[in-house]
Amino acid sequence: MRIKLTIEYDGTAYAGWQRQENALAVQQVVEDALTKLTNTKVVISGASRTDAGVHALGQVAHFDTESRIPPDKYSYALNTMLPPDIRISASEAAPENFHARFSTAGKLYRYQILSAHHAGALTRNTHAHVIYPLNDELMAAELKSLTGTHDFAAFAASGSIVKDTVRTIYTADMYRRGNTVTLFVSGNGFLYNMVRIIVGTLVETAFGRFSPEDMPDIIASRDRSRAGMTAPAEGLYLNSVKY
Amino acid sequence: MRIKLTIEYDGTAYAGWQRQENALAVQQVVEDALTKLTNTKVVISGASRTDAGVHALGQVAHFDTESRIPPDKYSYALNTMLPPDIRISASEAAPENFHARFSTAGKLYRYQILSAHHAGALTRNTHAHVIYPLNDELMAAELKSLTGTHDFAAFAASGSIVKDTVRTIYTADMYRRGNTVTLFVSGNGFLYNMVRIIVGTLVETAFGRFSPEDMPDIIASRDRSRAGMTAPAEGLYLNSVKY
Repeated sequence: MRIKLTIEYDGTAYAGWQRQENALAVQQVVEDALTKLTNTKVVISGASRTDAGVHALGQVAHFDTESRIPPDKYSYALNTMLPPDIRISASEAAPENFHARFSTAGKLYRYQILSAHHAGALTRNTHAHVIYPLNDELMAAELKSLTGTHDFAAFAASGSIVKDTVRTIYTADMYRRGNTVTLFVSGNGFLYNMVRIIVGTLVETAFGRFSPEDMPDIIASRDRSRAGMTAPAEGLYLNSVKY
Repeated sequence: MRIKLTIEYDGTAYAGWQRQENALAVQQVVEDALTKLTNTKVVISGASRTDAGVHALGQVAHFDTESRIPPDKYSYALNTMLPPDIRISASEAAPENFHARFSTAGKLYRYQILSAHHAGALTRNTHAHVIYPLNDELMAAELKSLTGTHDFAAFAASGSIVKDTVRTIYTADMYRRGNTVTLFVSGNGFLYNMVRIIVGTLVETAFGRFSPEDMPDIIASRDRSRAGMTAPAEGLYLNSVKY
């Protein structure tokens, strides 16, 4: 039986989602718990390979099992075994052709910024801290200019080996509440570090490096060095995955 | 010169605000940094002695110093020395008769609850987790019945030695956003554990133990055992202090 898990995690303590040598990844922690629970080696596939320090409110993963544990009980059983910074928010049966990564219709990312003179104690692992005041109107205009289908090569970490760098951004919105700015970006897929480079470019817009009118040129250049810095991992959340 | 500090902290790692033997308190960490910064032993007075695990967005403290550091520079200097879970959000000169604790005109506390089947990974140190659905309307009605001037002995941790247990609650409000419930309670002063016992009573109201009509009787009883449980520390924030 194929089981779909929805997973929330605080990425602060982890080397990202994907299992790797010499560092603890979220995937490994969940796989180890599942292997212990079902007494069989379990491998899970996740929708998004979030980086070190990046969080998830709704990561999705699937695995196959012969276990007769009722699908909705995995969440309760796993949550008694997992560390408190990883929680299974739901578990359910999935069709045999469901694939957490390849069946995705879209992903929604969130990015949180604290815009203040001093960093926050309570937001130190959950928000990027920007000391200079942000220009909300310019940032929102720049965000809007990124929506649609474009070749986003300029917004992908250099060294990534993906050949097709065309992606569609469905929505891109920004909200402010006091000194906290939250961005939501949804699309059919994202290149490596794409959301963090978009946010870094927006923040540098506020510093006067870019204006919204520059965006078409930056996109057309397909040149990573034309876009802004990569915003830090701690502000980024995989909010939800759509199928 | 008397200096006023506004302090934000994540209380998770600390034994509370007040300096104590055998455990690390926020007061001690700030005093040690100030002592190092000014090369003289510094003692600070805080507005509220928050408990272990309780957070602060706007704790206020004062100290006296002969140092010639400009008052607004303490925040920047201290933030380079303090651990990232304690931040000085502002520093300023205060009148000689200003006292962080005795000059207060009111305090505003916040309490955050995650109402969901599963605990949250990202909210594990910042929200109390309640598995059962809450009855928002009953809770809000009960909150309202606590406003005004009352003898709150029934809502003080037993064993506290304060003689005068009369306090005035100015405002008491509740907001929901998805599965997160946030309560704000302001008053001229609070007894030991008072906000946490109020919240615990509200949550038990949702379980059917109390109804809003019971509140006047519970208050009149002055009996701690008549009120509800003490809600956990991690949901509580000293939001701000008014002078």
